[in-house]
Amino acid sequence: MDYRTEKDFLGEKQVPADAYYGVQTLRAMENFPITGVPVHQELIWALAHVKRAAALANMKTKMLRAPIGEAIVKAAEEVAGGALASQFIVDSIQGGAGTSINMNMNEVLANRALEHLGHRKGEYFYCSPNNHVNMSQSTNDTIPTAIRIAAHRLTKSLLETLGRLREGFEAKASKFDGVIKMGRTHLQDAVPIRMGQSFGAYAAVTARDVVRIARAAEQLLAVNMGATAVGTGLNAKPSYIREVVSLLAEDLGIPAHAAANLVDATQNTDAYTELSASLKVCAVNLSKICNDIRLMASGPRAGLNELDLPPRQPGSSIMPGKVNPVMAEVVNQTAFQVIGNDHTICLASEAGQFELNVMGPVIAFNLLQSLKILRNAVDVFVRFALDGMEANRERCADYVHDSFGIVTALNPHLGYEVAAQLVKEALKTGTPIRDLILERHLLTPEEMDVILDPVQMTTPGIAGEWLLTERGTE
Amino acid sequence: MDYRTEKDFLGEKQVPADAYYGVQTLRAMENFPITGVPVHQELIWALAHVKRAAALANMKTKMLRAPIGEAIVKAAEEVAGGALASQFIVDSIQGGAGTSINMNMNEVLANRALEHLGHRKGEYFYCSPNNHVNMSQSTNDTIPTAIRIAAHRLTKSLLETLGRLREGFEAKASKFDGVIKMGRTHLQDAVPIRMGQSFGAYAAVTARDVVRIARAAEQLLAVNMGATAVGTGLNAKPSYIREVVSLLAEDLGIPAHAAANLVDATQNTDAYTELSASLKVCAVNLSKICNDIRLMASGPRAGLNELDLPPRQPGSSIMPGKVNPVMAEVVNQTAFQVIGNDHTICLASEAGQFELNVMGPVIAFNLLQSLKILRNAVDVFVRFALDGMEANRERCADYVHDSFGIVTALNPHLGYEVAAQLVKEALKTGTPIRDLILERHLLTPEEMDVILDPVQMTTPGIAGEWLLTERGTE
Amino acid sequence: MDYRTEKDFLGEKQVPADAYYGVQTLRAMENFPITGVPVHQELIWALAHVKRAAALANMKTKMLRAPIGEAIVKAAEEVAGGALASQFIVDSIQGGAGTSINMNMNEVLANRALEHLGHRKGEYFYCSPNNHVNMSQSTNDTIPTAIRIAAHRLTKSLLETLGRLREGFEAKASKFDGVIKMGRTHLQDAVPIRMGQSFGAYAAVTARDVVRIARAAEQLLAVNMGATAVGTGLNAKPSYIREVVSLLAEDLGIPAHAAANLVDATQNTDAYTELSASLKVCAVNLSKICNDIRLMASGPRAGLNELDLPPRQPGSSIMPGKVNPVMAEVVNQTAFQVIGNDHTICLASEAGQFELNVMGPVIAFNLLQSLKILRNAVDVFVRFALDGMEANRERCADYVHDSFGIVTALNPHLGYEVAAQLVKEALKTGTPIRDLILERHLLTPEEMDVILDPVQMTTPGIAGEWLLTERGTE
Amino acid sequence: MDYRTEKDFLGEKQVPADAYYGVQTLRAMENFPITGVPVHQELIWALAHVKRAAALANMKTKMLRAPIGEAIVKAAEEVAGGALASQFIVDSIQGGAGTSINMNMNEVLANRALEHLGHRKGEYFYCSPNNHVNMSQSTNDTIPTAIRIAAHRLTKSLLETLGRLREGFEAKASKFDGVIKMGRTHLQDAVPIRMGQSFGAYAAVTARDVVRIARAAEQLLAVNMGATAVGTGLNAKPSYIREVVSLLAEDLGIPAHAAANLVDATQNTDAYTELSASLKVCAVNLSKICNDIRLMASGPRAGLNELDLPPRQPGSSIMPGKVNPVMAEVVNQTAFQVIGNDHTICLASEAGQFELNVMGPVIAFNLLQSLKILRNAVDVFVRFALDGMEANRERCADYVHDSFGIVTALNPHLGYEVAAQLVKEALKTGTPIRDLILERHLLTPEEMDVILDPVQMTTPGIAGEWLLTERGTE
Repeated sequence: MDYRTEKDFLGEKQVPADAYYGVQTLRAMENFPITGVPVHQELIWALAHVKRAAALANMKTKMLRAPIGEAIVKAAEEVAGGALASQFIVDSIQGGAGTSINMNMNEVLANRALEHLGHRKGEYFYCSPNNHVNMSQSTNDTIPTAIRIAAHRLTKSLLETLGRLREGFEAKASKFDGVIKMGRTHLQDAVPIRMGQSFGAYAAVTARDVVRIARAAEQLLAVNMGATAVGTGLNAKPSYIREVVSLLAEDLGIPAHAAANLVDATQNTDAYTELSASLKVCAVNLSKICNDIRLMASGPRAGLNELDLPPRQPGSSIMPGKVNPVMAEVVNQTAFQVIGNDHTICLASEAGQFELNVMGPVIAFNLLQSLKILRNAVDVFVRFALDGMEANRERCADYVHDSFGIVTALNPHLGYEVAAQLVKEALKTGTPIRDLILERHLLTPEEMDVILDPVQMTTPGIAGEWLLTERGTE
Repeated sequence: MDYRTEKDFLGEKQVPADAYYGVQTLRAMENFPITGVPVHQELIWALAHVKRAAALANMKTKMLRAPIGEAIVKAAEEVAGGALASQFIVDSIQGGAGTSINMNMNEVLANRALEHLGHRKGEYFYCSPNNHVNMSQSTNDTIPTAIRIAAHRLTKSLLETLGRLREGFEAKASKFDGVIKMGRTHLQDAVPIRMGQSFGAYAAVTARDVVRIARAAEQLLAVNMGATAVGTGLNAKPSYIREVVSLLAEDLGIPAHAAANLVDATQNTDAYTELSASLKVCAVNLSKICNDIRLMASGPRAGLNELDLPPRQPGSSIMPGKVNPVMAEVVNQTAFQVIGNDHTICLASEAGQFELNVMGPVIAFNLLQSLKILRNAVDVFVRFALDGMEANRERCADYVHDSFGIVTALNPHLGYEVAAQLVKEALKTGTPIRDLILERHLLTPEEMDVILDPVQMTTPGIAGEWLLTERGTE
Repeated sequence: MDYRTEKDFLGEKQVPADAYYGVQTLRAMENFPITGVPVHQELIWALAHVKRAAALANMKTKMLRAPIGEAIVKAAEEVAGGALASQFIVDSIQGGAGTSINMNMNEVLANRALEHLGHRKGEYFYCSPNNHVNMSQSTNDTIPTAIRIAAHRLTKSLLETLGRLREGFEAKASKFDGVIKMGRTHLQDAVPIRMGQSFGAYAAVTARDVVRIARAAEQLLAVNMGATAVGTGLNAKPSYIREVVSLLAEDLGIPAHAAANLVDATQNTDAYTELSASLKVCAVNLSKICNDIRLMASGPRAGLNELDLPPRQPGSSIMPGKVNPVMAEVVNQTAFQVIGNDHTICLASEAGQFELNVMGPVIAFNLLQSLKILRNAVDVFVRFALDGMEANRERCADYVHDSFGIVTALNPHLGYEVAAQLVKEALKTGTPIRDLILERHLLTPEEMDVILDPVQMTTPGIAGEWLLTERGTE
Repeated sequence: MDYRTEKDFLGEKQVPADAYYGVQTLRAMENFPITGVPVHQELIWALAHVKRAAALANMKTKMLRAPIGEAIVKAAEEVAGGALASQFIVDSIQGGAGTSINMNMNEVLANRALEHLGHRKGEYFYCSPNNHVNMSQSTNDTIPTAIRIAAHRLTKSLLETLGRLREGFEAKASKFDGVIKMGRTHLQDAVPIRMGQSFGAYAAVTARDVVRIARAAEQLLAVNMGATAVGTGLNAKPSYIREVVSLLAEDLGIPAHAAANLVDATQNTDAYTELSASLKVCAVNLSKICNDIRLMASGPRAGLNELDLPPRQPGSSIMPGKVNPVMAEVVNQTAFQVIGNDHTICLASEAGQFELNVMGPVIAFNLLQSLKILRNAVDVFVRFALDGMEANRERCADYVHDSFGIVTALNPHLGYEVAAQLVKEALKTGTPIRDLILERHLLTPEEMDVILDPVQMTTPGIAGEWLLTERGTE
């Protein structure tokens, strides 16, 4: 293989001649062979846009001469479009607050710009990774800005998917509104509920998750471009600071704006922890919902069997005909991953010191992964499980018919203690509750028909309320 | 000791004759001797208000006769005012979604109401814990409502305290605005910053925490009174549902309102996880700030010694004269507790099933503790550490003077590579940077005075920008 | 109230005249009103024993004169026996690595010793908290030692309780060995299993938890007495170091010994994180088991209803006759608390710096709580749920009879694909599998009796293996 | 592209004609596009060995005819050797407890075996993924076994690396044994210590981590081959169960053995949580050590500057000459990832139900990642940071000389209170402690030389002990 020699203040390195990356990327490769997973492609995309905006702003403020600046802009647009993807090789977990990601980008853009300018790779005199591509910038403003931009884009996609989930739940809330089933608390028979009400509750909490995540994502729009090293803006002209964020926002079509306090925005990571926390809350909710669905779909014979999920794959390599609720399970597992990732993000965030949090790479690794996998899992859950779900209406009705939970409606009429004794005796003797009530002349058959109507029990009110007027209220 | 006999559908128990609690509280005591910590007093306070509102609403809707209802109201007001505190004895961690807390309250109120009515304790025919005190209610609506009310009150107190913290940081941001210190990234010398800027960043993130927590607390105001067992409102009249929340809101002077979907509000716990998550984000931020403060206050001789904290107590039982940053340390520890509590809350929240999350007690235990200890720790930190903090101006200036970080300002003039070589040589030979620059005729002394001015470096801009026009921009 | 004046190097304070604690305890009370929960009583007990051993060792090595030393020993024995409990008032969460706990103890013992010596409280010239009670010691060796001793004692109690749990599971494994039930994977019907096998699995994992926790607790026995401030043993005579640990071990009757490297033992907290991690693993296992039990006990009509738990308390304030699996639920909640506590302990442990981890108090708070509540929850679970549990034999048999899971046994005879088609058709048409097999002449009735015997399926082997010889193996 | 048609009991699918995987793998690809990260290659390697052993055991026990079995064995050996890697395409996070991983392997091996047998891909009549490759097996025994084997192999590599870390710390403990530095507690000056002692403490805790992880890994060796679907061994001959584990252990050269209770080993995941917990404890320790190292290496001018780390890469894209402690930072970040992964593993483990934990895939994803990245991070830390680390001897000595911490040695001679007053005065007036002592005739210069010798202070004992005999001991 052919090589070119590059150097930095630590010495020389042989770089493959056709590589667009340079000496600092090589050092990072040597230093950080940790996960084997390269930096998230959305982060590369976002950083290319950041570099483009910076080059434009530097030209506009007369810091950067047009030919060089234009070559950088062109290179950045190519990379943002997906070109040279194989040149971004630094590991997701790396020391140095993202310096290696930033320099990998600076080197690739410099070398690509050099080609556009008619020079050879490595001739950094004409276009340098540090002096030109990174002009007016620091890792400490470009990387946090790029992480925010990437997270914002992934959040948008997640929110669309969660919106479809909410709609899916709402559709089922309508469809299953007539399905009476046994409500359960403590996994014990409680009182009747309509399955539509259950799915309505799932829709409601999902709607709140959408609001929560969207609200958390707003903070991402306050970026710290112009902060340079520690937030003070050293080496960045005020005019550049104004320009660079406008250009970035315009380019991306999002209302990104400069953070009100750049020192704050450079050292604090609460934009990430807040977003991750909102994902965690969503993950907890989704996991609870999927647990319910797996319970309702349990069986078919030795389980509750209230819900039929579309079969997606043979469920066992040994048990013929078995089908498992795999789409719900994958949401559970994704939720656990998101919750664990949130933990990592908190630990990394707490480890910030003074003017910078150097744990940015592991934060980005986890945050972007959470956004991506949550979206993906919800997407397939909606398409492959929720949309085709069917309620097993008869089985649900049987449970309601068999259960004693309906005696709760007798409380206003007989009192809690009497009702409790009836249940106890019915469980012991097997005698139906109705028979026990008749035997003791507590209510007439007609009264019972009214009071013990399951459908009525799924809405507020006291069944047979008029009967109370005679008997008194306590 | 004298006893009275009480019974429920599981059988009889001997209750101490002078106890206001009854048989179900006794069962709970026997079943749950777990933490030894009784239920949080704010929860007792809130639940008493809930019971008061329910009794009023039941009277207003003709379910409960006035004498009984008034006796219950009177008893509830007494308990809300702090009376009979010793009668609330059930453990903070308990099985049963709070049934034991609810019944402990129902029994105490029933017995106290009996006294008001001229009956003896235990004569539940005249006023029953279940039929009268708990009328139109379930554990599953009263306990979630009471947890929300209690959490809301504690949050208000926390927010006031965080407001004082923010003001304290702002005061220091002003006071220390003239203190130039060395900015540090990666704990390595970076570029100058003003200590006021650092405290301004602390104020900024604290201000966001206030917003975040306040926003999360809003959800607490949507309560589920009237939901009864599973959210369907069985046994609760629509008129009662309307009344009870209004009466509660009016009584407490807060804009509490009925949740839009009672089934949702009964089974989902995202109001708790969202609030806890916002506390966790705040805890992470506070821990980072306290870490910074402890680092700046390190020494006095073998540390950074940039900040003097008010001495609060001898720091060592063996090392004479030692004083430790104990007020910052206690915030760190409290932060860790809050973060761990958030984890417990998430686990408990994820464990919800169907129409109810039965893990409410452990959620309340952790959420209310987090709110309380975070408030307490911030309160003493402000009063005993922040308010009396002093910057060690000279030591800060010495660090700036000694450091090489200022060469960053040379980048636009000499380029990154040349500047890097100067640092490398200065570190090796001990020759001051200025001398090296002069030796090589890179800049004049006058130019250097302008470019290397530390104060100038703490604001945006390129020092000596006019020099660039001649030399060109790259 | 009467007061006496005490002072330390920060100034004077008025101490209640009858208080045994002194000025430093007062400062701690003022500084740390955080949780309201005083230091765990086991920690007070352990620290008193540590102080006793130190006084004895100081006398033996001629550092402390006998009358003073003996008065301290007597006071320490009184405190270890439970006396003066009200004098230990510092908060569980406190800044300062436990200096306030240590000084609270030093002051109480000094004042009690002064009484024994015929002096008045506060006359520290005759017996000083620092010079006499704390002689040859530092907070940094006495507090870690006391935490270890307290944790060791609580672990012993936990292990006994877990031993009873394991025995309880084993008893049920025997008792339920003849109960055939449907095995479930993915909550879907799988193949038959005996309920005794399920409880055998619970016993097996509990047995491993006992081993794990016991092994982790061994590390607690390596204490760092003699380390003094940073582990170097400054101000502690080698003869004292040898004596103090022997005296402590002898007193407590446990094989405590000096850590091999006192610098290591003073700064590292892995003894705590390891123990807490073993508790967390146990909590995860217990929570899974309790989830299973709650599922099997679900119903009685709209759930699985395979297991009957002893009723412990009315389960609902509104639903008459409802009984909930509260003893399993309280174990779940306790498990979540232990897991969250482990998180706090890890955060605090990671925050150690240089020669000491100053987050000791919050570690002790959580570790001792975890040990205590896990023991308490398991204890009541065994006594109130496990011991009286009964299997619902008929319901279990019905599930097996109804299920298609048994066709797995047909695989070796018919092949996976054919068996899968049979299940699919049976589910669609409702025709029993046996009939389908007969219709197609796949097996004779006699062959099916052998192959589809549920009991046989719960042990290794291929039912009807001899039939394969004719048909070939694939 | 050419396709072949495959089918399972859910219907037909078009499989690329040259693919070794089949219909079920295709379904999994469609169902689970979650992370984009394929299953860990160590897991593929381990599973191939499992399949090889199963085929051999099936042949030996006359279940599988030799030509087919041998073709499977040959295919499995090829895959274990790295062949057909591109055919393992299912996602790391997937529903179904690993059925998709297992079927991906079964299909690839069946098709490769078909080629060896002279058939075409897809002609499963001659060699079927389920009937032949998966014979006597279930996902529920092969996947847990493969995870254990893969984790065991990665643990071995981690332990070797941690062994080198311990040796590296020990080498530095020797090398730096003569470097006196200021011990710090609470980041405040404490008493002197030798830097060798600090590194000795790091070596000691690392040695315990090695023991802990090794001990946890032992449990991995108890595998559940033969358990089949739920642990009862249905469809697996006892002779097969005996053979398969022996063959696997022999093949791999590790003492793997059958779990004592296969039902237990199939449903419980404590082998994973225990191992992960031991990694977490190690991560906490490593993070603390790296924090210390970063603090000691802070500066060079505005920090402690006690330690010089080998420069590994330019530390900033904007600050010339800046070098950061990137190798320590990457260990911190890796530690945070491992701790977060442990959280995910716990959540997934707690979610096990009845006879199986279906969350196996996310457990394996996190556990194998933790093992791999911890090894990688420690490896580069040792090579690129620890080995070349140098102590800054003079700076360390200066801190000791300047500090007041040494007055602790005066305690036995002057008493704690007098010593504290001296420090207070020295801090206020700037007068050296020695001068204050002389002024007050507390000690002679000769006595001070002995008592205040820093080197002496780093070992146990009372400096100038003989002086005490005259003055008395208190």
